[in-house]
Amino acid sequence: MCGIVGYIGGKQAQSILLEGLSKLEYRGYDSAGLAIYNGQQLNVEKSKGRLMDLETKLATSGLQGSLGIGHTRWATHGKPSDENSHPHVDHDGKFAIVHNGIIENYIELKEELIAKGYRFTSQTDTEVLAKLLADHWDGGLLSTVQKVVARLHGAYALGIISEYEPDKMIAVRYASPLVIGIGEGENFIASDIPAILKHTRDVYIMEDGEMAVIYEAGVELMMMDGTPIKRESMRVDWDIETAEKGGFDHFMMKEIYEQPKAIRDTLASRVKGNIVDLSQEIGLTLEQIQNIEKIHFVACGTAYHAGLVGKYVLEDLARIPVECDVASEYRYRNPIITDRTLVVVVSQSGETADTLAALREAQKHGARVMAITNVVGSSVAREADDVITTWAGPEIAVASTKAYTSQLIAIYLLGLYFAQAKGYKSAEELQGIVTDLLTLPEKVEEVLKQEKTVEAFARSIAKHNNLFFLGRGLDYAVALEGSLKLKEISYIHSEAYAAGELKHGTLALIEDNIPVIALATQQSVFEKTVSNIQEVKARGAYVLGLAVEGDTGLIKSVDEVITIPQVSDLFAPVLAVVPLQLLAYYACVERGYDVDKPRNLAKSVTVE
Amino acid sequence: MCGIVGYIGGKQAQSILLEGLSKLEYRGYDSAGLAIYNGQQLNVEKSKGRLMDLETKLATSGLQGSLGIGHTRWATHGKPSDENSHPHVDHDGKFAIVHNGIIENYIELKEELIAKGYRFTSQTDTEVLAKLLADHWDGGLLSTVQKVVARLHGAYALGIISEYEPDKMIAVRYASPLVIGIGEGENFIASDIPAILKHTRDVYIMEDGEMAVIYEAGVELMMMDGTPIKRESMRVDWDIETAEKGGFDHFMMKEIYEQPKAIRDTLASRVKGNIVDLSQEIGLTLEQIQNIEKIHFVACGTAYHAGLVGKYVLEDLARIPVECDVASEYRYRNPIITDRTLVVVVSQSGETADTLAALREAQKHGARVMAITNVVGSSVAREADDVITTWAGPEIAVASTKAYTSQLIAIYLLGLYFAQAKGYKSAEELQGIVTDLLTLPEKVEEVLKQEKTVEAFARSIAKHNNLFFLGRGLDYAVALEGSLKLKEISYIHSEAYAAGELKHGTLALIEDNIPVIALATQQSVFEKTVSNIQEVKARGAYVLGLAVEGDTGLIKSVDEVITIPQVSDLFAPVLAVVPLQLLAYYACVERGYDVDKPRNLAKSVTVE
Repeated sequence: MCGIVGYIGGKQAQSILLEGLSKLEYRGYDSAGLAIYNGQQLNVEKSKGRLMDLETKLATSGLQGSLGIGHTRWATHGKPSDENSHPHVDHDGKFAIVHNGIIENYIELKEELIAKGYRFTSQTDTEVLAKLLADHWDGGLLSTVQKVVARLHGAYALGIISEYEPDKMIAVRYASPLVIGIGEGENFIASDIPAILKHTRDVYIMEDGEMAVIYEAGVELMMMDGTPIKRESMRVDWDIETAEKGGFDHFMMKEIYEQPKAIRDTLASRVKGNIVDLSQEIGLTLEQIQNIEKIHFVACGTAYHAGLVGKYVLEDLARIPVECDVASEYRYRNPIITDRTLVVVVSQSGETADTLAALREAQKHGARVMAITNVVGSSVAREADDVITTWAGPEIAVASTKAYTSQLIAIYLLGLYFAQAKGYKSAEELQGIVTDLLTLPEKVEEVLKQEKTVEAFARSIAKHNNLFFLGRGLDYAVALEGSLKLKEISYIHSEAYAAGELKHGTLALIEDNIPVIALATQQSVFEKTVSNIQEVKARGAYVLGLAVEGDTGLIKSVDEVITIPQVSDLFAPVLAVVPLQLLAYYACVERGYDVDKPRNLAKSVTVE
Repeated sequence: MCGIVGYIGGKQAQSILLEGLSKLEYRGYDSAGLAIYNGQQLNVEKSKGRLMDLETKLATSGLQGSLGIGHTRWATHGKPSDENSHPHVDHDGKFAIVHNGIIENYIELKEELIAKGYRFTSQTDTEVLAKLLADHWDGGLLSTVQKVVARLHGAYALGIISEYEPDKMIAVRYASPLVIGIGEGENFIASDIPAILKHTRDVYIMEDGEMAVIYEAGVELMMMDGTPIKRESMRVDWDIETAEKGGFDHFMMKEIYEQPKAIRDTLASRVKGNIVDLSQEIGLTLEQIQNIEKIHFVACGTAYHAGLVGKYVLEDLARIPVECDVASEYRYRNPIITDRTLVVVVSQSGETADTLAALREAQKHGARVMAITNVVGSSVAREADDVITTWAGPEIAVASTKAYTSQLIAIYLLGLYFAQAKGYKSAEELQGIVTDLLTLPEKVEEVLKQEKTVEAFARSIAKHNNLFFLGRGLDYAVALEGSLKLKEISYIHSEAYAAGELKHGTLALIEDNIPVIALATQQSVFEKTVSNIQEVKARGAYVLGLAVEGDTGLIKSVDEVITIPQVSDLFAPVLAVVPLQLLAYYACVERGYDVDKPRNLAKSVTVE
């Protein structure tokens, strides 16, 4: 969950590392630090808080030298503090290390070192690694790192430098992402490509179990045991400018408004004459599709909520039974997987550690794995058997918006593609559904015009610390996503309920004036939903209803209404989620919090 | 969700009705009322609030007469108020009606009546029925009721009396429970048996679509169209004394302490020599069991949480894929059901309307339905193909405790019975598991000894309005139940999270001193859970850990610990839930709320 940058070359490292870290802040930003070798010794500067706090510290003195590593942190072991920040060094300051991931057996290793007399100044698992390097020092940096790595359980991307051998930097990757950037007379390491894109577009993407010795003049890529690896570097043609805010106050609002384009791009080239064609991305034959007995959607957070919609869509269109699981649960619950199970993993970044672990578990049990992801070349994309890319472009705001709606589109395409193969619905009926699907970008534009109405409601509820979302069927799936958005950035404790389930317990929490956001876009359960809205109204709730244009029935039962254009039940989630994204945004602004960088969260969650 | 009582005979009706209502308060208690015919006209008295408030009103004047109906309400349409209380009467006071259920098309009917000039004084759907009776009056009470009922959509149990024909009372049942009690020279109607048990033990249990004309001297049972029905009455040998508090301050605490007995009773006679035998209650042949392709657990509230445990248990022991659904969602999501699908519905009362509707939907699609219920002769029990009764005895507290743990035991028995038939595990292994299962009653007794520790913790967190539960795997299922308990009675907005999922959004809500209850009883994911606990600790949470005795690893990571005896992962939920029940109980007491009758909730939820 942290960001790593490293530099070796002829220039001053400090500004290169700081700039690289600034591009990685979306990976974590509760503290940051640098270690740079000045020709004689390693010097370290670190600071709790945003990168800016570190820059302030460095403004007066600064660190000299052209070999260094930097880190921006998202706390796992130990609170954000100066001491817990990376890089960590051993007692003599001979080794400096930055780490992304979690060392699961660190307590055991720490106790062993304490018994030998080592003292610790932080609560981190990473400091254990620094001390282990000193303890295992055998006169050679590479062999020492190999000995230390052999003792670790868990997930880690490591960047290591040492005073003993200042001509090199060591990089290690296991279950946390790491790339190597290849320059001229200089080289780089980073958790992610944007950090080094200003300096080079030629990269090696490291795989699990690989390490590298990086010199000014070259890179030696190898397995953990030292076996050399030959690999071509990859040329990145990614335009970093697309990640700018484009006139909006925050990335999140920019990304909300990018949704019509993201949906269009995700549809484009996959729909031809009202037929969905995914044969370019999915290798499954017609027979293989017909043989699928079960689909498991597996994902985390917002992508999991997309998976919940996927359950409805695939069961409805293709009549294939679907289970939807949180990835961190799926892996450990011994799921029933056969060679006729298709596992669909959904991850914006394609680096979500829980999702990646679930993907591997599923493949181990013989399932074919399909990925829906926004990042070409990401770990998930590389390891899956089939990939449907969402063309949403880089998403910077921690709270996901355009990635979610693009994931929904990918799921609709998948459902329709399978439905065409299974023949459960007639060709005419399916083509009618595709025609509907193609209207969504324009309809999202229509919904966005209600921004001011949502803003007014958001301001009125921003003083509340608790609220509820209700919905049935697909509305419930969207309610979960709306509630998560609000939690993530406004820190209001909201909770989404299947509208019919509220009376089985949680109704006790409904009291005078508590805000309730009730989704009633699903025509098939409209009357039942209105009954449930009556239950909360009768107990004093202040209700915002979300309905389809022309549904006058709802207006009588609620205090305020927001409408979405006429749309089939199946596609309503794409429209219904947009006002909820705007609601979370404006509630956050009204409460004065940081929209794009909520506390405690990171964009790409690369630890389990 | 409401309680109905009716009387016709030679005695004064008022005290009989009031006493009957007092036995039905667990069905709803936000308002109550009576209508009694005094020989000349109908008189009505009703009151918002507990039954006691109505009794106070009646203490001075009182209603004379020996034909009457009474009602205790749980609001659906319109707030609790005097006007919205039942019975409802027409404009001339010629008809009085009590109603349990929801009339779905009441808005349409009301508009029709308003157009004819009728005025309404309440927001209820029931008042519409009273006015409809007057509007459709044809000179005969039975035929008028038949005409009115023919116009209704929804769920209803009705009790109706009229000044025009004071020699009778009419009872109607559709999708809401209603029984007729047969006395000597007097007869009764009631939503549930305890209301009339003091006066008679001979009852007719009405079925959906039936009505009855009840005279002093006899009962005519018929279909809605008047076709007579012949049915033997049933003799109830139920001991109402078991429903007393037995020395505890509240029913809930009594029921928490009854759990070892409830578990023993539910196990008894079903385990013989370490083999589980359910052949008495389950009619499935060995071949039918082996042919089950899929199990759907369907339930609401606490019973749904038992179903979540059922998913793990059945998948693990019998390797049958399981889906678990909230009943109000299941019915409307067009689930994929075949003749090789077994649907298991779980309901304490056996009258849960959502669950009953799901049961019928499943049967309509050809599934075999098994019920796990606590009430013999309940609707769910009568309509299911197979029934496993939990022998927990009457549960009065709205917050379910002993019913939940008994449901878990029934699920374990089912899992083991199927496992024996499927042979996925060896006979020795299964017998070892059964041996473990039999130790649970004693181990629950051990857990109960920690009451004082839990009480102290509960008092310390009672001032908080928000908290979180965490757990992985089965611990997550239990966390959901613990969180629901706390919500139901203490009105603390608690929420349970799969521990690995928290970092995908909700971690933003964790701030200094927020209480987190972390379950870590599952050995298979212990290390991972401890990592997640570190994440919330690092952000300032105050953590209560729930661990298995001897797990010293957790103690270092949390602020306080409660332990349960050593137990296999599979059976830990039965022990782990007990401290959480006690926690909810003491948090409620500390906050000064009504333990047994939380606001807004009813024990048996007989509306959708």
